[in-house]
Amino acid sequence: MDKVFRLVVSCPDKLGIVAMVSNMIAKYSGSIREASQHTDFIDDWFFMRYEIGSGLSPFDVEGFRKEFSDVSTGFEMSWRLIDAKEPKKVILMASKDPHCPLDILHRWKSGELNCEIQCMISNHKDMEKVAGWYDLPYYHVPVIPDKKEEAFARINELIEEYESDVVVLARYMQIIPPELCAKYAGRIINIHHSFLPSFVGAKPYEQAYNRGVKLIGATSHYVTEELDAGPIIDQDVVRVSHSVSKEEMIRLGKDVERMVLSRGFRYHLEDRVLIHGNKTVVFD
Amino acid sequence: MDKVFRLVVSCPDKLGIVAMVSNMIAKYSGSIREASQHTDFIDDWFFMRYEIGSGLSPFDVEGFRKEFSDVSTGFEMSWRLIDAKEPKKVILMASKDPHCPLDILHRWKSGELNCEIQCMISNHKDMEKVAGWYDLPYYHVPVIPDKKEEAFARINELIEEYESDVVVLARYMQIIPPELCAKYAGRIINIHHSFLPSFVGAKPYEQAYNRGVKLIGATSHYVTEELDAGPIIDQDVVRVSHSVSKEEMIRLGKDVERMVLSRGFRYHLEDRVLIHGNKTVVFD
Amino acid sequence: MDKVFRLVVSCPDKLGIVAMVSNMIAKYSGSIREASQHTDFIDDWFFMRYEIGSGLSPFDVEGFRKEFSDVSTGFEMSWRLIDAKEPKKVILMASKDPHCPLDILHRWKSGELNCEIQCMISNHKDMEKVAGWYDLPYYHVPVIPDKKEEAFARINELIEEYESDVVVLARYMQIIPPELCAKYAGRIINIHHSFLPSFVGAKPYEQAYNRGVKLIGATSHYVTEELDAGPIIDQDVVRVSHSVSKEEMIRLGKDVERMVLSRGFRYHLEDRVLIHGNKTVVFD
Amino acid sequence: MDKVFRLVVSCPDKLGIVAMVSNMIAKYSGSIREASQHTDFIDDWFFMRYEIGSGLSPFDVEGFRKEFSDVSTGFEMSWRLIDAKEPKKVILMASKDPHCPLDILHRWKSGELNCEIQCMISNHKDMEKVAGWYDLPYYHVPVIPDKKEEAFARINELIEEYESDVVVLARYMQIIPPELCAKYAGRIINIHHSFLPSFVGAKPYEQAYNRGVKLIGATSHYVTEELDAGPIIDQDVVRVSHSVSKEEMIRLGKDVERMVLSRGFRYHLEDRVLIHGNKTVVFD
Repeated sequence: MDKVFRLVVSCPDKLGIVAMVSNMIAKYSGSIREASQHTDFIDDWFFMRYEIGSGLSPFDVEGFRKEFSDVSTGFEMSWRLIDAKEPKKVILMASKDPHCPLDILHRWKSGELNCEIQCMISNHKDMEKVAGWYDLPYYHVPVIPDKKEEAFARINELIEEYESDVVVLARYMQIIPPELCAKYAGRIINIHHSFLPSFVGAKPYEQAYNRGVKLIGATSHYVTEELDAGPIIDQDVVRVSHSVSKEEMIRLGKDVERMVLSRGFRYHLEDRVLIHGNKTVVFD
Repeated sequence: MDKVFRLVVSCPDKLGIVAMVSNMIAKYSGSIREASQHTDFIDDWFFMRYEIGSGLSPFDVEGFRKEFSDVSTGFEMSWRLIDAKEPKKVILMASKDPHCPLDILHRWKSGELNCEIQCMISNHKDMEKVAGWYDLPYYHVPVIPDKKEEAFARINELIEEYESDVVVLARYMQIIPPELCAKYAGRIINIHHSFLPSFVGAKPYEQAYNRGVKLIGATSHYVTEELDAGPIIDQDVVRVSHSVSKEEMIRLGKDVERMVLSRGFRYHLEDRVLIHGNKTVVFD
Repeated sequence: MDKVFRLVVSCPDKLGIVAMVSNMIAKYSGSIREASQHTDFIDDWFFMRYEIGSGLSPFDVEGFRKEFSDVSTGFEMSWRLIDAKEPKKVILMASKDPHCPLDILHRWKSGELNCEIQCMISNHKDMEKVAGWYDLPYYHVPVIPDKKEEAFARINELIEEYESDVVVLARYMQIIPPELCAKYAGRIINIHHSFLPSFVGAKPYEQAYNRGVKLIGATSHYVTEELDAGPIIDQDVVRVSHSVSKEEMIRLGKDVERMVLSRGFRYHLEDRVLIHGNKTVVFD
Repeated sequence: MDKVFRLVVSCPDKLGIVAMVSNMIAKYSGSIREASQHTDFIDDWFFMRYEIGSGLSPFDVEGFRKEFSDVSTGFEMSWRLIDAKEPKKVILMASKDPHCPLDILHRWKSGELNCEIQCMISNHKDMEKVAGWYDLPYYHVPVIPDKKEEAFARINELIEEYESDVVVLARYMQIIPPELCAKYAGRIINIHHSFLPSFVGAKPYEQAYNRGVKLIGATSHYVTEELDAGPIIDQDVVRVSHSVSKEEMIRLGKDVERMVLSRGFRYHLEDRVLIHGNKTVVFD
């Protein structure tokens, strides 16, 4: 089976980036299988994601990596070269509500999400049986009002022990402390059950109901210190009429949450998301 | 051609409303052609819209109206009986941007919007030629920073002279003073170029661009004293990726604005919108 | 807890239907909680669905049922009065693909679908473990090319033994023989993985890929003798660009199938679907 | 103002295409402003669209064109290099229905569509006044049952005289004869008022109404000899319930037609559409 690598690059926009990169890929026998580029003309910033397979002879990854390390410096590039077959290591965090974690687990098992889910962490015991079905270790880490620090110290410990790449907050419902947000910047994905920036914080469906909006939505985003204000990966909405009660909003919203979280998470797993400031470039 | 009337009712929820209303319609030879009902179980409030045609003999409107006036009191009803063929009288207000007013005018001329557009009012001269094409009087009422009161006094005068039922702000871009909002409550429809409550106020596309949202939208709503906070009639969104510039957001948003304003306006013209507190019931 | 009944009526359009029905509900102390009506002006046919709770005293169901049976004859009504709390009995049929049956099962367990799933039937063994998780009997009924009759005789037997109200074909992939289609008319719901009437029959995603459509879809419908041609309950679509491969179409389509099947099935369970000829009225 | 060129390429997939093209652009001082690529792994075919601006010195178009002509032969490339500022020449054809032609004309005048609309051709006189507003020559070419050949000979003559690049059938409603389809392959864009391949031919809304579909749509496509079967550029849909009459379907459909035609036409004008067999690659 052919090896595939993903080269993800962002840097100040300059002449000759594409020529340089594509030449170097050709030089080391790579072939470009999928190419996405974007230039932000306001910030003069360049973004690129290439999927590289083997050409006439196998792609010489190590040779490429070595020379690219040198050359990229001149372009002030931030870059990664990722083996596409290497699954990212993931911790799934949940609270009581099963719809998002179950959806992630089902998509994972059915092969939609190329990753290794390592364990589940929850402040409740409700999802323990589900974790069992999927043969996953389950860590019950209660978050007690005056002892939140202990809980998040334990969570940090688990992320370190598991050497996880990504943490997915599948309706985890607790606020992540600033030091963890900073430490794992761009590596914690949350689903917020509103169309951000509308209805930040608690009970967004109730806020939406009370405002009388005609569409409700959900947003998957990276977690940052400011609540529900991190870089947005994906959003979607569903129509609600006056006849939709708060309870029905919650039911309808679940489907949007599932779609938006799993889509955003998949983009992340496939290295399709590039964070730039508080925004994202998503090469879907 | 058969006469059609619309009976629009809202009142505290009580037993026997439907039986009372449908009996009285039958008694005066009306036949129910279209029926919509809604009960708000939180506020215990009942909403109804019936389209009434003639039964075996013509619907006795005057008889019905007289008896219904008496009976409805016991139900604390707020109600209207409207001749569906009687077009509402409308003033169209615009600024420089032609896409919304042109769309309303085209839909009006092609028969989609049953109303009588009486004139156009604008703080600029840009749309004067368009008004000419449609044989509409055009009132250029400049809004000058220190003399805003004069402008809105003139606008109020025009609404009174024309005895207008509805004022449509087709991207009018000026803030309506509180006294006009109060005087014409439920009769001034605005299009705001964002998915409210996100991005209230000026330059919503720029706000959306800077926040990095993945969908942009528009909202048609009744104007109230608090800016962009009145009862929402309709909303819609369109997907935008990272590659969509501010200018392209404006272009894409225009289509959403057109759809959402014309749809909300049509609902209003067909008496499909019932305002309750700061929310609407829309029997579409 | 208050009892709720659903009165579902269809009949030739006539004067006084609403007055008659609402009077009779009032007479037996019922209160109308939700009301939907539709008149087909081409066929002159009337459709109605009322949710009836108790009024000042409990709704006298038996009294109502008795008198309504008599009176409805004069209106040539086809009608049902259903106890909303009485869950419908359901058989879930699947093949190898788990996404639709799993989704139905998850929504059922989480309380979204008010029904009693009695058992699963499949021509394969793949879903047996899943049935086990949900404590459901699992009938493996292989469909062998020359012995299809045997298989469907067994399936018919199971439906009869279980006295099922509805059969859901959750990507069952076998053609139901005409006699079963006729016997269980309006009681077998299928999900077809295309936007009907496009791409009837086998491999609709491949057909869609080859035609180069820019949206793919799914359709939930009642099964009739003619393949994929029965009354449509619900449909939806998702955008696909040129870059979406056949395999990705299948992945994207799964989410549409899940939504459209579960939505159509829920409408059926809540008696919101009225079949008229080869079309449906769906009071959502 | 900086000159911008579009390089559009399709060819058998081979190693080194991107490197070759990007090198040559760099060699002639071009800078890549927007890049889109696609590989069809079933047909092993490569597609590319680059927007090229000037680099440190102005892009040497003639030098590039000359060398690229030679080099591209080895790749069996079909390619075009287009000056992005050079508006394409367009003939707009209409019948009686004004919504599509008016929408195209409005978007053109407001600057959304970079092209030169040269004239209107119609088999009816209804749109003559509209053409006048926009200062466009109007050719009334009646299509008489036994003399269709004459009409299309005249139309061909006009396309030749005007040296038009594109013909837009904005609800033209007449079948284009095979010889014109062949002669102007990939240059005639039609809007069909259904979600193709459903409801080919006449009265698609009536077909949709009779089938009882829950979404109706529209399709913009290139015209080929087989009716409504050419390469699809864009499609969209709108939800319709049982309560939507045939007349309302037509009204709702108009908005979808406008969107889908103008979007497809814009993609074409910006050289974003590459035809491959009976399918399109659309770099939107």
